[in-house]
Amino acid sequence: MTEIERRGILFVFSSPSGAGKTTLTRRLVAEDDRVDLSVSATTRPPRPGEEEGVHYFFKDRAGFNTLIDAGGMLEYADVFGNLYGTPKAPVLSALARGQDVLFDIDWQGARSIGRALPEETVKIFILPPSAAELQARLQGRGQDSDAVIAARMAKAGAEASHWDEYDYIIVNRDLETAYKEVLSIVAAERLRRSRLPGMSGFVADLAAIR
Amino acid sequence: MTEIERRGILFVFSSPSGAGKTTLTRRLVAEDDRVDLSVSATTRPPRPGEEEGVHYFFKDRAGFNTLIDAGGMLEYADVFGNLYGTPKAPVLSALARGQDVLFDIDWQGARSIGRALPEETVKIFILPPSAAELQARLQGRGQDSDAVIAARMAKAGAEASHWDEYDYIIVNRDLETAYKEVLSIVAAERLRRSRLPGMSGFVADLAAIR
Repeated sequence: MTEIERRGILFVFSSPSGAGKTTLTRRLVAEDDRVDLSVSATTRPPRPGEEEGVHYFFKDRAGFNTLIDAGGMLEYADVFGNLYGTPKAPVLSALARGQDVLFDIDWQGARSIGRALPEETVKIFILPPSAAELQARLQGRGQDSDAVIAARMAKAGAEASHWDEYDYIIVNRDLETAYKEVLSIVAAERLRRSRLPGMSGFVADLAAIR
Repeated sequence: MTEIERRGILFVFSSPSGAGKTTLTRRLVAEDDRVDLSVSATTRPPRPGEEEGVHYFFKDRAGFNTLIDAGGMLEYADVFGNLYGTPKAPVLSALARGQDVLFDIDWQGARSIGRALPEETVKIFILPPSAAELQARLQGRGQDSDAVIAARMAKAGAEASHWDEYDYIIVNRDLETAYKEVLSIVAAERLRRSRLPGMSGFVADLAAIR
């Protein structure tokens, strides 16, 4: 039997803060050996416990800019004076090995990755069930002031307005259902004919007996 | 909360004979209330036990041709002197109700349905693991002569050559795995942003708090 080859897939997750994206994506990376979490590069200094190559690739500004100039970043952004970005080399290496890569990233980063590698990118948007439910979740944490919650809600609304740039929408009413939906999308995308370049050899096996 | 509306999806399954398609599709229709099996029209006479509107819509040749001329068939074909086809009205009615419709049909019918309703159609191809395995399955049934098996193998090869017209490829190594893959595709396609016309109202709910 001819084995079916497969190129890796870039699964890009975005969501308003508080929709449960981090819980869902970390679980997928932990449970599926074929999915790696993308590691970003940043110019901000490491925080205690953060490891090079695990949490971030830590770079100085000159090193970061050299990578940008060499076309070595899939996307990058300046966030309050620190640069954050996705180095291209580890992503391309994963794709070539047939390994999928997961990105936990905002709509701007998602858009850049989708433009850089459109065939390989699958964009998934996680939404809370409603604005009221999101507010209740943020208040339920008990860790933010009303002003901070109002700011988070405004930011959530801004992020949510980009929902129509995504391939799939998951409304996270409960985590187990939402996680099953993530697994379905991952499984289905792996079955797409367009991701099976080796299939022509496989079908030749059947066609040969005509 | 704004309820998300959804249009129905046409799930079109094709495969070489012996790949397990009928088992997989009948199980999906039985277990998922949101999926109806498409009922074909035919000019061939009913066989004992076949019911009008359940197994087929039985029509005389004049009635069948009247439907064709009125544009009332999604696809049709002449098979050994009998006409077979898919009446358009029940399919459009199901789509409007948000009900999915499953078609168990060959590559020519699949192509016609995909052309008639491209946005709504998802085409899935089921393959046996190998030509040798397919031959072993056909021989294992013990119901066909060597000549009939050779003819079935040739027909399977011809059908398999159209694999690249499909959106998804399932290789049926074992039925449980293949059925899970069917369920993943169905679940994922229902989460596609392009199938959620009501989402704009939902997102407005979040955007309003900006």
